[in-house]
Amino acid sequence: MAATPEPATRVRRIPELQRHDQRDLEAVLDAGLVAHVGIVDDAQPYVLPLAYVRDGDRLLLHGSTGSRLLRALAAGAPACATVTLIDGLVVARSAFESSMHYRCAMVFGRCAPVEDTEVALQRFTDGLLPGRSGEVRASHPKELAATQVLELPIERWSVKASDEDPEDSEEDLAGDSWAGVLPIECRFGTPRPAADLRRGIPVPASVRQLAQRTITPPGTAAG
Amino acid sequence: MAATPEPATRVRRIPELQRHDQRDLEAVLDAGLVAHVGIVDDAQPYVLPLAYVRDGDRLLLHGSTGSRLLRALAAGAPACATVTLIDGLVVARSAFESSMHYRCAMVFGRCAPVEDTEVALQRFTDGLLPGRSGEVRASHPKELAATQVLELPIERWSVKASDEDPEDSEEDLAGDSWAGVLPIECRFGTPRPAADLRRGIPVPASVRQLAQRTITPPGTAAG
Repeated sequence: MAATPEPATRVRRIPELQRHDQRDLEAVLDAGLVAHVGIVDDAQPYVLPLAYVRDGDRLLLHGSTGSRLLRALAAGAPACATVTLIDGLVVARSAFESSMHYRCAMVFGRCAPVEDTEVALQRFTDGLLPGRSGEVRASHPKELAATQVLELPIERWSVKASDEDPEDSEEDLAGDSWAGVLPIECRFGTPRPAADLRRGIPVPASVRQLAQRTITPPGTAAG
Repeated sequence: MAATPEPATRVRRIPELQRHDQRDLEAVLDAGLVAHVGIVDDAQPYVLPLAYVRDGDRLLLHGSTGSRLLRALAAGAPACATVTLIDGLVVARSAFESSMHYRCAMVFGRCAPVEDTEVALQRFTDGLLPGRSGEVRASHPKELAATQVLELPIERWSVKASDEDPEDSEEDLAGDSWAGVLPIECRFGTPRPAADLRRGIPVPASVRQLAQRTITPPGTAAG
């Protein structure tokens, strides 16, 4: 689906940083773990961090049926889900030109409850930890009833990314100030068993596969 | 300033995860780099990632005077600034109990433009990269005119954090499924000079001090 050229998705500030390829969008959405979801209640905006996964042309968001704001989202209130990855500090020769390396995806729309909570919860589980759904028992009906999985269609969106060197003026280039990028690196660490884990239960494949793996920035070798 | 017990700041979901100490709030705000700021325009919420620093009892947010949403923020539209740090995946014995380790601060209120842009920009620069303002030239008047620094008072806020082991049922505890935490670690990497950096300019102290330093989770030894 293409980005609809509506006001909400047209990047006005520094439009040359906008990307228009859905693969750029998907790369950001697939690298993130948490979306910051905006919702309005009585003219007050709320921004909630929600775990999410991308499932084809929709985002699956996950929460409790007991949450008031989740219920408002489920009822179809206008929403904005923003996923941001911060890849580094851009250290320019002046304070003014200093900035950040980032990738940011915004998806606008209205959420709807997913009918088949069981399948959606499986996709959700495997989206965060690939293969995990095959390692755990099936969900109990009571658990499914207490889980709200929402879908947000990926139809109206924008992506913006910055990965360039600082752009200093000729005058500053001739000066003595350093300029460059201080990268920010995120990765999964070493799995830590729960204090109440019974002896002799090994770390499962799903967790082993992610351990020590780089999350951001893309292309970084795992340490 | 204490958290005002208004509806907007009372945590309804899993209230035992809420923290009430302003030091918890400040620890989250001081560890983050980007706030997700919610603002409403014509009933549509927008969630913008904005670099910020905490300056005492206010957040300083930084943007361009040319941004429509920044201008709406500056005009005092109701806002919500959310800062979230993701510290790990909580891998429970069931999909249902699986979750994340996180710390999340929300600050609600209305922004105002900071009068003394020069001082605010210095605080901003040093908040992200301590000592940097002393290493760069003073800002030009034209640069100051093009910079919008907003302040959001830290008056109405909430903090929520989760750092516990998974809480599985007795039945699941007796099973064969692994449970634990897969930590997520973020740190500053090795500084990369700009392609156009003149030879012989060393990495400045501000950048050297952050290089290789752990951002999250707290208490992790730098690698």
